[in-house]
Amino acid sequence: MKKIYLDYAATTPVDPRVLKAMLPYFSEKFGNTMSLHSFGQEAKEALEESREVIANLMKAKLNEIIFTSSATESNNLALKGVAFANENKGRHIVISSIEHPCIIESAKWLEKQGFEITRLKVDKYGLVEPDDVRKAIRKETILVSIMHANNEIGTIEPIEEIGKICKEKGVYFHTDAAQSFGKILIDVNKMNIDLLTTSSHKMYGPKGAAALFIREGTKIEPLIHGGGHESGLRSSTVNVAAIVGFAEAARICQREMKIESERLTKLRNKLIKGVLQKIKGSHLNGPPASAMPKALRAGPPASAMPKALRAGPPASAMPKALWAGPPASAMPKALRAGPPASAMPKALRAGHPKKRLPNNINFSFPGIEGESLVMQLDLLGIAASTGSACSSEKLEPSHVLLAIGLKPEQAHGSLRLSLGRWTKEKDVDYVLEVLPKVVKRLREISPFKR
Amino acid sequence: MKKIYLDYAATTPVDPRVLKAMLPYFSEKFGNTMSLHSFGQEAKEALEESREVIANLMKAKLNEIIFTSSATESNNLALKGVAFANENKGRHIVISSIEHPCIIESAKWLEKQGFEITRLKVDKYGLVEPDDVRKAIRKETILVSIMHANNEIGTIEPIEEIGKICKEKGVYFHTDAAQSFGKILIDVNKMNIDLLTTSSHKMYGPKGAAALFIREGTKIEPLIHGGGHESGLRSSTVNVAAIVGFAEAARICQREMKIESERLTKLRNKLIKGVLQKIKGSHLNGPPASAMPKALRAGPPASAMPKALRAGPPASAMPKALWAGPPASAMPKALRAGPPASAMPKALRAGHPKKRLPNNINFSFPGIEGESLVMQLDLLGIAASTGSACSSEKLEPSHVLLAIGLKPEQAHGSLRLSLGRWTKEKDVDYVLEVLPKVVKRLREISPFKR
Repeated sequence: MKKIYLDYAATTPVDPRVLKAMLPYFSEKFGNTMSLHSFGQEAKEALEESREVIANLMKAKLNEIIFTSSATESNNLALKGVAFANENKGRHIVISSIEHPCIIESAKWLEKQGFEITRLKVDKYGLVEPDDVRKAIRKETILVSIMHANNEIGTIEPIEEIGKICKEKGVYFHTDAAQSFGKILIDVNKMNIDLLTTSSHKMYGPKGAAALFIREGTKIEPLIHGGGHESGLRSSTVNVAAIVGFAEAARICQREMKIESERLTKLRNKLIKGVLQKIKGSHLNGPPASAMPKALRAGPPASAMPKALRAGPPASAMPKALWAGPPASAMPKALRAGPPASAMPKALRAGHPKKRLPNNINFSFPGIEGESLVMQLDLLGIAASTGSACSSEKLEPSHVLLAIGLKPEQAHGSLRLSLGRWTKEKDVDYVLEVLPKVVKRLREISPFKR
Repeated sequence: MKKIYLDYAATTPVDPRVLKAMLPYFSEKFGNTMSLHSFGQEAKEALEESREVIANLMKAKLNEIIFTSSATESNNLALKGVAFANENKGRHIVISSIEHPCIIESAKWLEKQGFEITRLKVDKYGLVEPDDVRKAIRKETILVSIMHANNEIGTIEPIEEIGKICKEKGVYFHTDAAQSFGKILIDVNKMNIDLLTTSSHKMYGPKGAAALFIREGTKIEPLIHGGGHESGLRSSTVNVAAIVGFAEAARICQREMKIESERLTKLRNKLIKGVLQKIKGSHLNGPPASAMPKALRAGPPASAMPKALRAGPPASAMPKALWAGPPASAMPKALRAGPPASAMPKALRAGHPKKRLPNNINFSFPGIEGESLVMQLDLLGIAASTGSACSSEKLEPSHVLLAIGLKPEQAHGSLRLSLGRWTKEKDVDYVLEVLPKVVKRLREISPFKR
């Protein structure tokens, strides 16, 4: 059976172009970056070239990028590292109530060490109100950490405004951009960001690599101590192969981001519209799809696009597991097109209110269990998720869905569909064909009263 | 020019058999182990199979193995995790003075948090005296951390005796086995170990994977908080490809360990003997090569070995970068042989006094600078190291060499040669030809008085 992977927010396949770039670094250019000999120097060169690519994609300086093993580690380093290094100034930290578990749990641990945490509420779309940040900041506040885009409901937070407030108040601002880096534009200077977390495996790079942007002059101490790698902020033999893959993934995203985000936005909107029409009582969690400016919905003619991008990545670049029938040329012309870079409205580039990630969809279907829904869809070849990918094994309802006002039974009946590089319109059509039937069947056998 | 890599203690190439096992997990079986759908379950299965392999190689239970990103992270988790979880009992920790920088620096950080650290001295061979451990343990002691084998001078510590003392005293015992796991036998039960650190990239697995053995019932808290992976002790999307590679590397080591350790011991001893004869004033740092029981030096006849192992790994399994001329069949017959498993004296399997790792060589050449020596050897195609691999960029003399009584100028003139899976006798012969000339030349131009 063909499989349709719609869980790109949980993790992505490594783009075969990325894997190709990584391969020499396993058994050939395998040196330790700390070694003085040529094997070591070759590895070090690859590391520094990769650092430059990651820095460029967020407009940071070379010495502001620290590689870690994961976004979770980067987030732990940001919170705990800033906390311990600045406790002389104060012990108060501000986060939102819909952060990723790694921020929430790090904050909880810091509370046990005597720090004080303020958790900001969000509105029904998952948005943090910048003015709430301003009010929460006190003399003892050392750090504000608000995510760039939410992993469950796709909300893009107004981080430029929040960053501005933090800058005015002289408080460090960290943002977790694991879900947004490589998908939408990020400029750490324009957005007034002091620390920013990224992840490789959410953007078609390998697992095991991530970065933390740390603005020059930021007071922070390491989480992992040792041999002094990464300017002393992250010791461990450097995982060069994974970092080279991360950089190659970033290069590809940089080239294809604008076109791809428009392509996915269209597919996303078609899927959202279709589900809301076809499934009675379905509810879209997160910002409305209509928040996208109308001008962008049609898109400029295909000729306005770089030729290389018209059919998406070359067929050969597609992971085998995702090969799904018709050749690229069979793709409806409308899907091949996307706006040229210059055609993208400024509002889409950053922090536009009520905006959601191009690839995120999250529904609630009252009366059913998300777990059963995911299992049923899996049997029909569709890989989806309920709640956060990282906690979908837990049985508690999602803290994000509760924070935007859902009742526990609504949160339990949630479904996240996250689109990606190999999602085709026919995949969306298949979901629209299958999902209503599955929801109907589950409702029939459900013990829940509606 | 052909390259001879003699820095296997710094990092190893990924064995091509390992890479082959990893490849499907990048773009095909790429799921998130936390996902409920088939992509996730497939990844989870691979994870649990890998856990079993690692557990078996040290005789641990499945639920006692936690995967991390590196030995450095494992060591940080062991020290800080046990410290924070047991501070109600006491705040005193015992380490040795020749631990890896990640133990030393973690301990230093814990000192800043109010813990007290005792650093045990070692003898001229780098050995910790078990009785010193006994004397150092107090009522407030919560943890003893003594490495299994030293990364610079190859000393194998008497951890079975130390473990026994810790068990009697009711104190947790951690050992850093990054350099020994996969090279010599480890039995966490026989050796009375509560926590044990391993590393993938020191044993022909990829960088980015490592494990921490944590005996059932040990009180420890996480270093990296988040979604609750690895029994809540190490959150982060699991790096399945790297872990699958680590497990495959462990399988290969398990099969080939005994033969390989004998083969390397012979090459090591030939190199040591040759250098001591040829270079005036050279000094072997660490335990003497003669500590190996005589009975083992000749070895049983070739016919006593599994046929598949007689010529080492198949030529196709050798990383291209290391291909070095003659076919395996050109290898002197004597080198093909090694003792059958049963022929290995018990003393060699663990904790024998004055024993050194089969692949470790460390010399001091008074009157020269280790850095210059490494650079000169690199120009001649030999990759070696001076001081610890992880700190060879630092200019301070090695803390290990100082701890065994070397003067700073002797420590500066040190050279570590670490052998590995693709080291051949002709590589040793080449070193014996080249090294005396290089040392002579460097001594001629050296400003040091001797």
